[in-house]
Formats: sequence, C-alpha cells, structure tokens
Amino acid sequence: SVTVYGLVDMGYAYRTDNYDASKSGRNGIDSGIASGSRLGFRGVEEISPGLKGKFVIEAGINADQGSAAQGGAAWGRQSWLGLDAGVVEARLGRQYSPEYLIYGDIDPFSHGQVAKASNIFQHVKTYDRINNAFYLTTPYFGDVFSVDAIYSFNRGGDEAVANAGDKRFYAIAPKLQFGKMFKVVANYSHDYDKAKYTTDTVVELGAIVDFGVAKISGAYAQPKLESTPVGAAKEPKKYNRYLLGATVPFGNFSLLASYAYSKDKNDLDEKATQIGIGGTYAFSKRTDMYLGFARIDADDKIAVKYGVSDGSNTFNDYRSGFNLGVRHKF
Amino acid sequence: SVTVYGLVDMGYAYRTDNYDASKSGRNGIDSGIASGSRLGFRGVEEISPGLKGKFVIEAGINADQGSAAQGGAAWGRQSWLGLDAGVVEARLGRQYSPEYLIYGDIDPFSHGQVAKASNIFQHVKTYDRINNAFYLTTPYFGDVFSVDAIYSFNRGGDEAVANAGDKRFYAIAPKLQFGKMFKVVANYSHDYDKAKYTTDTVVELGAIVDFGVAKISGAYAQPKLESTPVGAAKEPKKYNRYLLGATVPFGNFSLLASYAYSKDKNDLDEKATQIGIGGTYAFSKRTDMYLGFARIDADDKIAVKYGVSDGSNTFNDYRSGFNLGVRHKF
Amino acid sequence: SVTVYGLVDMGYAYRTDNYDASKSGRNGIDSGIASGSRLGFRGVEEISPGLKGKFVIEAGINADQGSAAQGGAAWGRQSWLGLDAGVVEARLGRQYSPEYLIYGDIDPFSHGQVAKASNIFQHVKTYDRINNAFYLTTPYFGDVFSVDAIYSFNRGGDEAVANAGDKRFYAIAPKLQFGKMFKVVANYSHDYDKAKYTTDTVVELGAIVDFGVAKISGAYAQPKLESTPVGAAKEPKKYNRYLLGATVPFGNFSLLASYAYSKDKNDLDEKATQIGIGGTYAFSKRTDMYLGFARIDADDKIAVKYGVSDGSNTFNDYRSGFNLGVRHKF
Repeated sequence: SVTVYGLVDMGYAYRTDNYDASKSGRNGIDSGIASGSRLGFRGVEEISPGLKGKFVIEAGINADQGSAAQGGAAWGRQSWLGLDAGVVEARLGRQYSPEYLIYGDIDPFSHGQVAKASNIFQHVKTYDRINNAFYLTTPYFGDVFSVDAIYSFNRGGDEAVANAGDKRFYAIAPKLQFGKMFKVVANYSHDYDKAKYTTDTVVELGAIVDFGVAKISGAYAQPKLESTPVGAAKEPKKYNRYLLGATVPFGNFSLLASYAYSKDKNDLDEKATQIGIGGTYAFSKRTDMYLGFARIDADDKIAVKYGVSDGSNTFNDYRSGFNLGVRHKF
Repeated sequence: SVTVYGLVDMGYAYRTDNYDASKSGRNGIDSGIASGSRLGFRGVEEISPGLKGKFVIEAGINADQGSAAQGGAAWGRQSWLGLDAGVVEARLGRQYSPEYLIYGDIDPFSHGQVAKASNIFQHVKTYDRINNAFYLTTPYFGDVFSVDAIYSFNRGGDEAVANAGDKRFYAIAPKLQFGKMFKVVANYSHDYDKAKYTTDTVVELGAIVDFGVAKISGAYAQPKLESTPVGAAKEPKKYNRYLLGATVPFGNFSLLASYAYSKDKNDLDEKATQIGIGGTYAFSKRTDMYLGFARIDADDKIAVKYGVSDGSNTFNDYRSGFNLGVRHKF
Repeated sequence: SVTVYGLVDMGYAYRTDNYDASKSGRNGIDSGIASGSRLGFRGVEEISPGLKGKFVIEAGINADQGSAAQGGAAWGRQSWLGLDAGVVEARLGRQYSPEYLIYGDIDPFSHGQVAKASNIFQHVKTYDRINNAFYLTTPYFGDVFSVDAIYSFNRGGDEAVANAGDKRFYAIAPKLQFGKMFKVVANYSHDYDKAKYTTDTVVELGAIVDFGVAKISGAYAQPKLESTPVGAAKEPKKYNRYLLGATVPFGNFSLLASYAYSKDKNDLDEKATQIGIGGTYAFSKRTDMYLGFARIDADDKIAVKYGVSDGSNTFNDYRSGFNLGVRHKF
C-alpha cells in the first residue's frame, strides 16, 4: 500500500555575468538542476466505491551535499492527505500552488535548468508551495472544464497564535482543454499579510497549443504587490510579464526554447528579458540527459535582481548560465 | 525484510480563550491532531529459535509544513534496535517511556486531539520519549503479569563528556491483566538532573475496565518536582492528578469522553480541570474521521500554564479548542 | 526498482582518561559505534546493454536520539547518481573519498568502535565524505589493476558565488590485487583552500595480506598541511603515520587488533600511539555483536588532540575507551 518513488538529478552548472566583467563565474556540481532530486512515498486506498484516500510524503534532496532541499524542510516538496470523491478531490497539507502546476506545463523547461521561466516570472517562485493548505481539484468535466482552488491560513510557517502574523493565501485556477491540442489556463492568486495589512495579487492567463511536431506555449501575468510600495504615493508595484515557449521533439531528443519578459508598470523602467535554449535526450523512459543555456538582459541594477538560477540555488545577480546533467527517475 | 508504514493525519483545529475575551482565536490546518503524522521502517529477523532481532526507525512529520516533527529530529518518533528472547525483550535507542505507552491506553483520546489528557497530566508529555534508553519489556506471564523498565544515561540530548549535565532517568511499570476485561497498571519514574542535583519523581496508578459496550478508564498520578522548588523552604512542587475516561463504540462510530484534574499539594491552590468530548468514525480499517472539543477551567493565571493543544503545537494558554480531521494509516 | 536497506547499531560505550585522574569517564548508550546506523534507498536501471544507471540515497541516523547523523544532514551518508559503462563508472554527488573506502579495508575495525584507526589517522576523518564530487571508478582490469579518482569544486558546503571560499579537492587511488590473497593500495589527496591559498596533501600506501587463517594489513601515510603552519618559518605541518592491523576469524567469532602511530616531522615531538583490541560475534548473517577496547598514549597535551571516539561522537581528549553493542543489517 506504499509506493517508494523518486528522482535523482545531478549535473554541472556554470553561471557568469555579461554585465560586470570583474565578476568571475561560479562552477558547481549541483543537484536538481532540471528537476529537484527527491524521495517520495505515496499510496491510494479504495475506501468505498467512489471514494479514495490518498497521501504523498516527498522529501527534496540536495544530492550534491546530502542535505534536505526546500530550506532544510525534511519533507518539504509535498506532504498531504487527500480524499478523492471523483467529482472533486480535497487535499490537506503542504502542496504546490495551482499557479506552479500550470507553469510546469507552460514553461518548456518546466521550472528547471538555468533558463527556468521563474527567473523572470518571480511571482511563480514566491508561490511555489503553500503550507497549511486546503486544496480542491476537479477532473475535466465534459473533458473540457476543470478548476483548482487553494486556501491557506498561513502560506509560510505554522499558523501563529491569534493568527497575528499569518499570510492568508488563496488562489483559483480554471482550466479549459479542447482535445489534446489546445489548452487555456488562468489563475488568480490573493496573498494577504495580516501583520502589514497588504495584499499582493496576481492575475494571469496561459495557453498551450500542441501541434504534435511542436508544442507552443505562452503566458501573460500581472502581479500587483502592495507589499512593495513605490514612491511617495506608496503605489503598489505592478508588472507586466510575458512568456513564450516552444518544445520540439525529434525522436528521443527534444529542443526547448523560451523567451520571458518583465517590465514594471510604475514608470520605473525596470525591464528584464530572458532567452533560454536547451534540450533533453532520453536514454530510456527513466533516464535522460539535459543541456541548457540562458541569458538575461536587464536594466534593473538598483531594484529587483533578475538572475539565472541553478539547481541548488535560487535567485542571484548572475546574468547568464549554462548547465548539463543527467536525471534518473525511480 | 523491511516494512514501510505510516500515518498521515490532517485536519482543522481552532483554539480560543474562555477567560480573556480580548484574545482572538487561532485557526489552523494542522498535522497530527489525533495521531502524529509519521513515516516508519521496521523489520524482524528470526536469528535463531527463540531469538529475534527487531528495529524501528520512525520519522515524525508536520505534514502541514513538510517539516520534521519532534522539534526537528529527523527520526524523532522512535529509533531503536531490539533483541527479543521471548521471556524478555531488550531495546536500545530513542523510545517511548512506559508511562507514555500506558496513557495511550488510559486516555480515551490516546495522546491526541485538543482533549488529550497530557494537557493536564503534563508529566506524561515531559517523559513522552526517552533518548539513549535501555528498555526491558516482558510478555504477560501466566497471561496476567508483565513489567516494563527503562534506563537512560541522559533522557534529553546526547550524554555529555563527564556526563556533567545529564538527566539520568529510569522508570518501572508493572502491569496486571485479568482476561480482556480488566487491566491495572502502575508506573514509577525517577528523573535525576546531574547539574542541578534535583530529582523529579512520578508515582501513578491506572485501571481500565472494558465492558464491551463501553470502556472505562482512570488514573491517579503524583508528580513531585524538586526541579521546581516552592517558597522560602524550597519544597518540591507536588501535584495530585486524576483522570477519568470513557470510550463507547457504536458500530463504526466511537464516542470519547474524558475528565482530567490537577491540583498542587503546596497550598498554592493551582487547580485545573479539563473536560473533553469527541468521536471517531471509521471509513475503513485504515481511514477514519475524528472530531473533538476540550475546555479547561483553571485558576493558575500566574504559575503553570494549562492549555489545550493541537497537532503541531504543544502547551499554551488557550483554554478551549475544537478540531476535526481525517487520519489515514498505510 | 528501489531497494530499501539499512543498518541499526546500538551499544554501550565508556570512555575515560588514563592521563588525568580527575577526569571522570563518560557513559553512553550510543548509536553507530561499530557501523553508522543508516537507512538507504538504492536502485539500478539497465539503460542499454553495457550501460547502467544507479543511485544511492542514504540517511545517517543517530538512533540513540532519533536525529540525523553527519552533523544534521538529512541524507548525509551518501547521495549520488551514477552511470556505469562497464570499463568505467562515473558518479556525481556526495560520496566517500577513495581514501576512506581504502581504510575501510585496511583498518580491522573498519572505521568503527573506540579503536578506529582514524583516531590517529585523523586525515582519513577529515576526508571521509566529499560534497559536490565527480567520482570515477574502474573494475579490476585483468583482475589486477583498478583506479579510483575524485574531483570536487568544494568538498564542504555548496560551491560559493565566484567560488571564493571553496575547497577544491581531488584524489587518485590506484589499486593492485593478486588473487584473493594480496592487495596493494595507494592514495594521493590534494585539498586546496581558495580563501587561504593553502594546500593540504596526503600521500599514503597500504597493503592487505589475507592468509585465510588471518588477515594482516598495514598502511603508511604522510599528511602535509599548509593550513596548519608551524613556527616562524610557517612550515607546513607534516606527519608520519603508521597502521598495523590483524583480523583472525574463528568460526562466527573474529578477533580484531590494531596498532596506530603518528609523529610530526616538524621536530615538535607530537607522538601518539593507539592500541586497539576487539572482536565480533555473528549471530546470523545480518546480526552480530561487537566488543572493543582502545588506549592512546600521547605526548601532545598542547597541540593536536588525539582521543578515542565512540559512535555518536568524534574526536575528544579521552584516552581510553570500551564499547559493546549489537549491529543489525536489513
């Protein structure tokens, strides 16, 4: 009644800076460059006809150092209990946000490699996993319409006494699919900081068209952050963010390419553009190789840092990167 | 030769205060409300006829946040190696105290939910798990008499150099059973602090009568704490503690009720009373739902805090609570 | 495709000081005295004829306290991904150094018990496991010659930005075997500290002769540590270290004995000698008992501390020790 599963991803990552010539690069043998290394335990129980019990406990692993990923959380990738009644499944625990799951599809690099979309779409990284979450998900009704919704009393740590410093979070993500070819997804996230009385929201829309010979995907996102006030008027910081991606399979090889762009809407002229190109080669169903390159052009020397990230690390101010590695599922 | 097992318990818990109206309640989606969420590995080897090797390695999981329970100990629920010779089994490692195991039977809520007996019987919480422990347990001789004993060089952290700050702990728990209907249990715990030269002891007696239609249980405990001196004479703090519990099964449903009372014996008039009521409903052998309510009345505003606890949290000064959740074994 | 395996080792360890009578001993019920307690997950995939994918994820466990060993690293014993092409196997991740693997063979106590060779051969402890490592290993070509090599951008923590504080490490270990009877091994380790501009090296040679009725092993090592400069001339600290070991099997019982000696080459007269004697008794293939005694004689009151170590602990200044325990594989 328990399945042990996982993935180990190890490779080489290099990051450097195309802006500041005095900064030398970083060489690393890193874990989880394309997909986070993990060890998981999951199970399903048929409680009664039409009702299933489910659970997932998943540890993120920095296999380059034998430590726990996700900032040291022992089972920090996912840990939840679910009841699946067919028309709706309810889950309680630490879980992915609907937004993070959506971009797993839209981003050709699927949250991995130096070229991951969240280098520019930083709001996706902020809301990757939600603690203390109540999640509802449906199947595709009429094979067309599905919806995911999530609520948390505190998306970060444990709920505080009197819930004083909690970050109340909810999100709703409707999805449409038309056959295997066309998919439209949307998301609205609402993040209320009880201590600061600020609300950050994200509205976004994505689409995926799968022509068979190529998969084209795109997204538009509009984060609005009251937690980052701008100027004397303390206007919330706002962004327009665009993503365009392509995945082109040739047998065991897949070519991956993406373009991501972010610009503030507060006349600060904080622009950032990322181009990413890469590929994967499948040795077998369970093992593949990957390779990727990314470069960011940005004018935001002062404010927000946009940088390519590698496996073990997240954001920093290096502006281009390369990686090469092997990924093994079990 | 290894069995992977575990339990995920997730639910909603609410705590509030019936004393101080200005204090707002705490809402939480919590892990391990009724039973601590866990992932375990265990095995048995038939070394020779009459001799078995055994082990348990068990991780406590805060599934609401993907972190390790038991204060961050990776395998903090249990981790021990045992040799079972039939007439006696010896175990070495981090283990439950005999007392904690006894109250798992006496407390109708079995150390879980907001109404757990250890909210009032705080000494049971202090000695839940013992590090560096040598444990001896016997089967019921003549189907009637059994005894558990435990010794530790330091019940908390690792044994110090020169054992200077260690807390030497031992306990002995004789048990009698008369058929399936009647059980009497006793425990004596002895906790010596080598740094402070103080000894805390607990003497306690419990009984369980199972009428089939209902199970009635009760306990009396007398903690005596030299580590908490009282007044100018520095008398050890002493308590009388009483517990009464009932479990009434109706098919898949079980009604749970308990009453717990603590009063100091140092004429400080520190009284605390808890009433707890709840229930469990079994969907299947492996999955059930639970619901519970607890309320504490206490006069001890100044000294010891008695509060209802929920899954992820332990003691605090909230005085009533409610919880509702689902528990799944695997 | 996943194998769950492990080992639990629990016992009693006593350490005391034969130099300073005022120092009282340390008593402990400890984990991992003879072999580190662990829980592991491993798998092999036949990717194609002649190419295998492999992984190991292994958690070290202080079973006496339910905590993670290796300084709290969740999967700190080993975590790596490998591709095995037959003539060479490449592995990426946190791994044993070639040197540590070699001494697992040469040291009759195989890195365990109070008498472990690394009490004196401290350089072996320093380089036990290497983070961010790229490892190459070959089978024995012509059944005679094999070589292991390792490289790491930073043997300690994660590779730093600009790799500023990294400790670049590499080692190469050629090995010769002549039938089952005779084995010669060598190792060269090179550890460059990028922040301090110092390089520590070790050159060492070992041999094992297995007569069947007894196995005799020996090693000579020459650490040279620029990171520990000596005197006004800031000469690198240098040592000569010698190890002699014997393993004598009598049925299920094995007698273990070792002699280890270290002396500086900087005319500081820092001498340390360890004698160790012990034994193991196999109850079954998976479970055994062990017993050991060690005593160190040293003149180095001021500089380097040489001390016997027990399971959970490493170096300290206790000079003799005894241990007794049980070890169970699963």
